[in-house]
Amino acid sequence: MKKILVLGAGHSTPYLIRRLLDEAQANDWFVTVGDRDVALARRRVGQHPRGHAIRFDVGDTTLRQRQIQAHDLVVNMLPPAFQFIVADDCVTHGRSMVSASYEDIRMRDLDADAHRRGVLILSECGLDPGIDHMSAVDMVRRVRAEGAEITALRSYGGSVPAPEFDGNPLRYAITWNPRNVLMAGETGATYLVDGKTKMVPWHEVFQRTWPVDVDGIGPMEAYPNRDSTYYREQFGLENVETMIRGTLRYPGWCETWQQVVRLGIPNETMRFPSMPAMTYRSITEMFLPVHTGDGELETRIAQYLGISPTGRIMENLRWLGLFDDVPVPRGAHTVADAMIALLARRLRLGPGDRDMVVLMHELEARWPGDGRRERVRTTLVEYGEPGGITAIARTVGLPLALAAALILRDELPLTGCHIPVHPAICGRILTELRRAGLRFEERRERLPDQDDGGGSTRESG
Amino acid sequence: MKKILVLGAGHSTPYLIRRLLDEAQANDWFVTVGDRDVALARRRVGQHPRGHAIRFDVGDTTLRQRQIQAHDLVVNMLPPAFQFIVADDCVTHGRSMVSASYEDIRMRDLDADAHRRGVLILSECGLDPGIDHMSAVDMVRRVRAEGAEITALRSYGGSVPAPEFDGNPLRYAITWNPRNVLMAGETGATYLVDGKTKMVPWHEVFQRTWPVDVDGIGPMEAYPNRDSTYYREQFGLENVETMIRGTLRYPGWCETWQQVVRLGIPNETMRFPSMPAMTYRSITEMFLPVHTGDGELETRIAQYLGISPTGRIMENLRWLGLFDDVPVPRGAHTVADAMIALLARRLRLGPGDRDMVVLMHELEARWPGDGRRERVRTTLVEYGEPGGITAIARTVGLPLALAAALILRDELPLTGCHIPVHPAICGRILTELRRAGLRFEERRERLPDQDDGGGSTRESG
Repeated sequence: MKKILVLGAGHSTPYLIRRLLDEAQANDWFVTVGDRDVALARRRVGQHPRGHAIRFDVGDTTLRQRQIQAHDLVVNMLPPAFQFIVADDCVTHGRSMVSASYEDIRMRDLDADAHRRGVLILSECGLDPGIDHMSAVDMVRRVRAEGAEITALRSYGGSVPAPEFDGNPLRYAITWNPRNVLMAGETGATYLVDGKTKMVPWHEVFQRTWPVDVDGIGPMEAYPNRDSTYYREQFGLENVETMIRGTLRYPGWCETWQQVVRLGIPNETMRFPSMPAMTYRSITEMFLPVHTGDGELETRIAQYLGISPTGRIMENLRWLGLFDDVPVPRGAHTVADAMIALLARRLRLGPGDRDMVVLMHELEARWPGDGRRERVRTTLVEYGEPGGITAIARTVGLPLALAAALILRDELPLTGCHIPVHPAICGRILTELRRAGLRFEERRERLPDQDDGGGSTRESG
Repeated sequence: MKKILVLGAGHSTPYLIRRLLDEAQANDWFVTVGDRDVALARRRVGQHPRGHAIRFDVGDTTLRQRQIQAHDLVVNMLPPAFQFIVADDCVTHGRSMVSASYEDIRMRDLDADAHRRGVLILSECGLDPGIDHMSAVDMVRRVRAEGAEITALRSYGGSVPAPEFDGNPLRYAITWNPRNVLMAGETGATYLVDGKTKMVPWHEVFQRTWPVDVDGIGPMEAYPNRDSTYYREQFGLENVETMIRGTLRYPGWCETWQQVVRLGIPNETMRFPSMPAMTYRSITEMFLPVHTGDGELETRIAQYLGISPTGRIMENLRWLGLFDDVPVPRGAHTVADAMIALLARRLRLGPGDRDMVVLMHELEARWPGDGRRERVRTTLVEYGEPGGITAIARTVGLPLALAAALILRDELPLTGCHIPVHPAICGRILTELRRAGLRFEERRERLPDQDDGGGSTRESG
């Protein structure tokens, strides 16, 4: 019997855990689910004879190492901050790990040890990052096989409510870890446009947006997603002129969130002993400079930000609850703690609502022989079940479960620290994803020929 | 014989190491100095018979633990990121540690273990943080002993060139770890003014400045320094209405640095494989949005920031080298790496220049009996020796050396994780500091009586 340890039982895990349990009998697996909140872990496991829930606190070193050692494979669904510590233990104890989080930069230091111990530490194997990487790399390989040069790749991902959703004016609902929504963009962003590298600090990320039209969905907006240039090498696109990963939202989210970031509200470092005595209104007041007169808070905020006191952004900030005289929850120690609770309450799907995930790649290719240029677009749109498994939980959980199965069956002949762009992983998992019903729609359009002579693919403006 | 391990041999250590070596014979100490750059460590130790230099890489766990175990006390001068890892090992191996860095928040988790092992982990025991805390707490105790209530404390510190310095238009020189200059303010700031807590995000820290007149020096400017509210409890000032710690510069630094932060230049997270091919000019260009026209870079930067293309800020940015077509150094992987090299080159003391450190506390007190109010000011100004020991190295090193001596002589009866506001530490070290020649000047002035009735000390505006 092979034993799987799933760490974390949050938003993104219900499909993953159900699928692993569903397949446990046939594969002779046993699945342990660990969470700080053991009741949550128990709910995920239910009465399944091949499942078991435990209380798991990642800060408890003895418990953590004992549990890792007692299992054959770890599926690490803990927040990003705990990716490395678990991976480090996995390497020490010779256990492979799969995760949907971005690869911690320190993982690179683990690579040699992971090879030596014969284990695979596979990060970025969910939806975005995850399926996005795999489908992009697959697309690049197919178009290259036709003899084309790739000149640009724009890759988008988003987890939002389905288009019919009208539960709030921001047209957004939190279906995964709300902390990641609050702190989105905190490391800034980097990308390549027309041969020029651009860096964007956090306080500008939601300002540097651009419109994206998604086939079958309509107009959305994108903001730059972390370090896109890093994936040039990962995707084998060292010579591309444009390389950008973007996160999709419905138009209007970014102009509102930009003001939340400008105020400084996403802050998880400053701790308040007196936090429980505060309301959301008093938190918002904290971010205004000292001398802003005696007017209404709303007016002073609008003046400080230079936005209309009666406009759409202000309406959204009000709707979010930033001006509510409502006490922050007990146990909140930082503004981030308080805001996470607020976002989770205000931005949610109603009982009849369903979520949607979108992946879209836009690739530009040129055929050196005749100068022909094409744009190839791949789009994946998936919807959740109202009141049931969300699209995000399914599309994050599915590739993780597939990777776990491949590793446990010794069908992934790979060791070290990886993301799933490696040919040994990518093709196998994509085939399984399609078999599981995921539909990637592709369409191509001819672009005007370029009269470049010197081989440059730079576009004007 | 007692063995002392000094970790790090950078800017702030020459006085510390020299003093420990000077006192080694009389106290029967032996001093080991470890640095990644063993040549630097050797220069600090010289030919001293009671000193020894070693190569020390904090990432080498075996070496780190072996060295800590082989010594009686660790003086940890490594960058902030490595404070916790060393403290953790010190507790494990039952060794006390002193440090000039801010207390890592995780130290609080070590407190119980440190008590159990009977060791002292003393952070914030340099100049600022360090002497500033000790002198502030001392001042608070003295004024309270007169029967007064403390209503406000403004505490300032700065390490700058002496007033006669004219080596650059910013009137600033780097005399400590340049990384800390580049990343200053990165966690934002929090303070209390007239009973109101204010939080400032990084991109506003250098905008929210105020003028400060320093006795004997003249006009300076202050920007808010990290989390001031945390020290309310540490200083026993829970009921104070104003509590703010500020960092001092000569006027003009902050308006310039604010633009560097707005552009997003202080970035140490994004890594570039192609960094060595860049110049400082191309780095600066990276931070402009994609479509800013075809004008000169300088003009486009000024337009983007909304500053005069021919004004003082622009002149300073140019002087710093942001527009120089000079390649970044080999080995730079981030914009931060490149900028640190630039700052260290452009912002330096000339051979005849001396640095200066300033500490100033401004305390407001009220006597409940008669409503009398006073402002008490304590100022410490110290100058470095041109070409010799800097004032910052002396004032950081002195309290550390004093604390080390007290611990090794078993004269600090204290265990756990502390900063030097504890009466057992603070009085002893202050006495020794005065004996070593540090002069705190104090002056008092009467403030207008308040007609408050209700006991409020809130000032208008």
